[in-house]
Amino acid sequence: MRTALPSRLENLVRAEFEDTCRRRFFFGLAFDPYGGSAGLYDLGPPLCAMKANLLSYWRQHFVLEENMCEVDTTSLTPEEVFKASGHVVRFNDAMVRDTVTGECIRADKLLEEYSETRLKDATLPIETKQEMQTLRNRAAGMTPAEMKAVIEHYQVKSPKGNALSEPFPFNLMFSTSIGPEGDRVGYMRPELAQGIILNFKRLLDSGNAQRMPFAGACIGTAFRNEIAPRANLIRVREFTLAEIEHFVNPNDKSHEKFESVRGTEFWAWSRELQDANADPVLMTVGDAVAKKIIDNETLGYFIARTVLFLEAVGLRFLRFRQHQRDEMAHYAQDCWDAELLTSYGWVECVGIADRSAYDLTQHSAASKKDLFAREEFAEPRIERQLQRKLQKGAIGKAFGKNAGEVMEYLNTAPEATCVALGEKLASGSVEITTANGFTATIKPEMVQFEFKEVKVTGRNYIPSVIEPSFGVGRILYALLEQSYWVRRDESAKNEKRAVFSMRPVIAPQKVAVLPLLVKPELLRVVEEIRGDMVLRGISTRTDDSGASIGKKYARVDELGIPFCVTCDFETDGCVTLRERDSARQVRIPREAVADVVAELSRPLRPREWSSVETEFPAQSTAA
Amino acid sequence: MRTALPSRLENLVRAEFEDTCRRRFFFGLAFDPYGGSAGLYDLGPPLCAMKANLLSYWRQHFVLEENMCEVDTTSLTPEEVFKASGHVVRFNDAMVRDTVTGECIRADKLLEEYSETRLKDATLPIETKQEMQTLRNRAAGMTPAEMKAVIEHYQVKSPKGNALSEPFPFNLMFSTSIGPEGDRVGYMRPELAQGIILNFKRLLDSGNAQRMPFAGACIGTAFRNEIAPRANLIRVREFTLAEIEHFVNPNDKSHEKFESVRGTEFWAWSRELQDANADPVLMTVGDAVAKKIIDNETLGYFIARTVLFLEAVGLRFLRFRQHQRDEMAHYAQDCWDAELLTSYGWVECVGIADRSAYDLTQHSAASKKDLFAREEFAEPRIERQLQRKLQKGAIGKAFGKNAGEVMEYLNTAPEATCVALGEKLASGSVEITTANGFTATIKPEMVQFEFKEVKVTGRNYIPSVIEPSFGVGRILYALLEQSYWVRRDESAKNEKRAVFSMRPVIAPQKVAVLPLLVKPELLRVVEEIRGDMVLRGISTRTDDSGASIGKKYARVDELGIPFCVTCDFETDGCVTLRERDSARQVRIPREAVADVVAELSRPLRPREWSSVETEFPAQSTAA
Repeated sequence: MRTALPSRLENLVRAEFEDTCRRRFFFGLAFDPYGGSAGLYDLGPPLCAMKANLLSYWRQHFVLEENMCEVDTTSLTPEEVFKASGHVVRFNDAMVRDTVTGECIRADKLLEEYSETRLKDATLPIETKQEMQTLRNRAAGMTPAEMKAVIEHYQVKSPKGNALSEPFPFNLMFSTSIGPEGDRVGYMRPELAQGIILNFKRLLDSGNAQRMPFAGACIGTAFRNEIAPRANLIRVREFTLAEIEHFVNPNDKSHEKFESVRGTEFWAWSRELQDANADPVLMTVGDAVAKKIIDNETLGYFIARTVLFLEAVGLRFLRFRQHQRDEMAHYAQDCWDAELLTSYGWVECVGIADRSAYDLTQHSAASKKDLFAREEFAEPRIERQLQRKLQKGAIGKAFGKNAGEVMEYLNTAPEATCVALGEKLASGSVEITTANGFTATIKPEMVQFEFKEVKVTGRNYIPSVIEPSFGVGRILYALLEQSYWVRRDESAKNEKRAVFSMRPVIAPQKVAVLPLLVKPELLRVVEEIRGDMVLRGISTRTDDSGASIGKKYARVDELGIPFCVTCDFETDGCVTLRERDSARQVRIPREAVADVVAELSRPLRPREWSSVETEFPAQSTAA
Repeated sequence: MRTALPSRLENLVRAEFEDTCRRRFFFGLAFDPYGGSAGLYDLGPPLCAMKANLLSYWRQHFVLEENMCEVDTTSLTPEEVFKASGHVVRFNDAMVRDTVTGECIRADKLLEEYSETRLKDATLPIETKQEMQTLRNRAAGMTPAEMKAVIEHYQVKSPKGNALSEPFPFNLMFSTSIGPEGDRVGYMRPELAQGIILNFKRLLDSGNAQRMPFAGACIGTAFRNEIAPRANLIRVREFTLAEIEHFVNPNDKSHEKFESVRGTEFWAWSRELQDANADPVLMTVGDAVAKKIIDNETLGYFIARTVLFLEAVGLRFLRFRQHQRDEMAHYAQDCWDAELLTSYGWVECVGIADRSAYDLTQHSAASKKDLFAREEFAEPRIERQLQRKLQKGAIGKAFGKNAGEVMEYLNTAPEATCVALGEKLASGSVEITTANGFTATIKPEMVQFEFKEVKVTGRNYIPSVIEPSFGVGRILYALLEQSYWVRRDESAKNEKRAVFSMRPVIAPQKVAVLPLLVKPELLRVVEEIRGDMVLRGISTRTDDSGASIGKKYARVDELGIPFCVTCDFETDGCVTLRERDSARQVRIPREAVADVVAELSRPLRPREWSSVETEFPAQSTAA
């Protein structure tokens, strides 16, 4: 992490990498016999195990260590929720159609690709080059109208060279109908946030005894009807998210554990650096918050904890990019993306957004439920408060069945409106119009407004929400690519052998137990050792095929399994333990090997391989 | 497990139980501020943690110990998959409408409730009583036409007392549209099976080196648009399943590990016992297979492993009910449900079905992909095989662009058809009709059929699938109910205090760390011990409110947390460790407590509390 960030993955030839993933079934298109369905992927056994390990470590690192309240919420969501949150109207991508083939294309990606193609032209005039750089950086934030202007100005064509339709908004949520009556629209959630946020009150009351701040967390599936799924697991239509919604007083976004992460370093690519076409710079979270590059301690704390999480699971190339103001989601106040380096470039894998009080405010208004927290002041305060004295008898008599809405108007009108109304009432009746459109003539005797000094001990407020949202599939994919390399096997004509250098905490299995030769007496030992491992909860793999031990090691390496135990005919009561990356081996007593592997592969503070080499004698790697 | 099964849960008053679940947020209707959405529940922090623990133990017990291939497949499924599997046509419940209110009602449940209401009438004539018993037991297996006859015969009315519509089939799958074009129908899966089964070939090739039998496994969400969601978490519209699809040679359903479970006892309620209105009987899996009560060893093996799993996670009241022949899903050949006792009666929580080769056969036909396994015979066999000798030149000349389909017809027609065709061709031309409806006149020179003796070393076959499918939400709900009891607290006026006696492996947190009084020096010790626990991956809870220690114990008991550490002012370097169910306490050195709790709460072979009482001195429970 201390040198400059690379711009590409040196060790990766994508076609070879993909071939390994396909052969060992790390992942593949879902519904394979039917030719697959774009953007829907199945994870095979190795990646499925890695996913369980990643999520388990995520729970340890965030939920357990930070005392978060994890909930499990539904994907199916009634329409009113996403109407209130703004998703029904605004969760769109701009789309264009090829007017000849009818192909649907995401407009921002089309413009980004157009600009990148033009930028490859070395003869491009300097002003066009600048225009194209701006287009590339800004396409994601453009409105359909702006995109239309760009398409017309540059005469942008479809990939097939045909004319394009006007850009129009396409909502990315999958819709369905809930219940047997068929009249209730529902959506598959495109994010987990609303499910956590709608539990705010229950969590505050039942889990936290009314204490703020606290965080809800959730792991679950989300769905987006992407216009153009692509790039393996990176842009798909169904994916796992692990989200945190940290509820905090908007007036106090400090974090009590900030000191513990102040020195954590990260590669920051702020809006300012992006605008200046400058590279990300390495800085501490403490400095970034002090310099207001990161807005507040809580946001900074989660950026630091995210760095620590991603590094602990084995990611090496990560940076944090701040969103441009016009690029943020409709609810976001500030947003930093943890980007991971892949063969597709830097990919957003974790979004850390300050959603402000937007969602809770919207849901409070739409559901007419109070979704606030309570803050007690250290000292009582004297506040000047408007008192509204309504004469119910007079109002009831004057307006009959409309009296209720007139009283609601008078009870809820903003302070300034009341002051103005009170002034007018001093000189006679005033007409008002209620929310339902009823016009009422208010007489001076019906209502009095006056200000009074009141002692206030606290206040209700709608919390802000700071949201770290982890794209689990993207993190796993980046982890696969960043862990991949090719070993030249000297003992086998320099054959190229793929290795995934996954850390034990994430590796699909922790150990392979292999017989040196396929003989019953060795298979019995293999089965005994495997049993010892299973009893310790250590996932194992065996291979009793007739392949050579070298070939078996290669098979294990390309599954990312960090350790191999090989049982042989030696009568010293020992077996061989091999470490994947170094291919170094030690001799270790048979009854000790399961405990040593357990120490090497435990999620927290695992034993270092070097200490095993110190304790046990080396074995020549020729075996 | 050795005495007779109870017929109800003695310790449970459902209203009190539900109140505890609501207050401590074990679960609640999703989208609470909006008044909820029927059949959609959120799990709060305690149940969410229990779910993660249950799934983790399921992975250990099944995937790890049985070397299964776990995959992670998508919920969104293109229409062709569920057309082939039969779900589009047949995954229905019969529905009736109240003709006045329009209310939609599940017809089988209506008839079951109707018969149960009638059965409560002590004056019911004996023949009507028998009819009602039959109706209650058979309603779930009736066709809409049979239901119509019953409704008319008994003049069954809606719950509101109104006339009913005719029963009609209602498909339970949620449908949506995949992709921006809007023309591809998709469904949210109602089970996980198809996703695993469609990976059969990839798993066979990549994970199992072509070896049979083997099992695929998957944990994921399924969706059913239930007509009448009810009974808390039992009948819901979105739920988690953990499924196994064990692929096996249909000619050999033995299981290599059957010996290890032969003596496992279970409460068997076979079809015969149900028909005789007799109670379930306790027997060993070995006996049940020997007597053909269970069809084969593999089915028996999974029933035994399911018993062991459910008992290990703390379920006490379980039985296995065999499906009636007319009640089984359209794909099932035999099916046993593990039923768990709840306050709603016995509830199906695990289905163990022999799906035969149905799904793979259907998908093979629909996708035109070979989805077979290969069996090598121990000895080569001589088989009489039909040889089809097509004269491509003659066929091509005669049928031009239709030649392909004619050849396909001749190459794939069943053996009997070919024999008949060959006989007719001996006396001249024969007309055939291809799959596309093309009529061709086949002349004798175009094709010859003859039988030949061939040495065969093996055969391709489509495997049978044995499927244990675990309803995770139902198991958790039954676990909550079966773990619940009420303690009379003698030190607090005999106040009733709820306790969940969850085993450590499943409990939401393993330990609570409490200060005897809220003093800075004790809070520091609490934080240190909590840190020790977190480093060992032990989930903890603290409570630094001003409540009394007795009240704090009560709060911890009603979350099902098995152990409590209390830090006090004693200067012996010890803390108190309390066990939940017995409320007994020992004094234990502060630096030893985290390791002891780790031993007590590890998923495999946990330490017994009694051994802790032996090792450490008792503390009077008055503290």
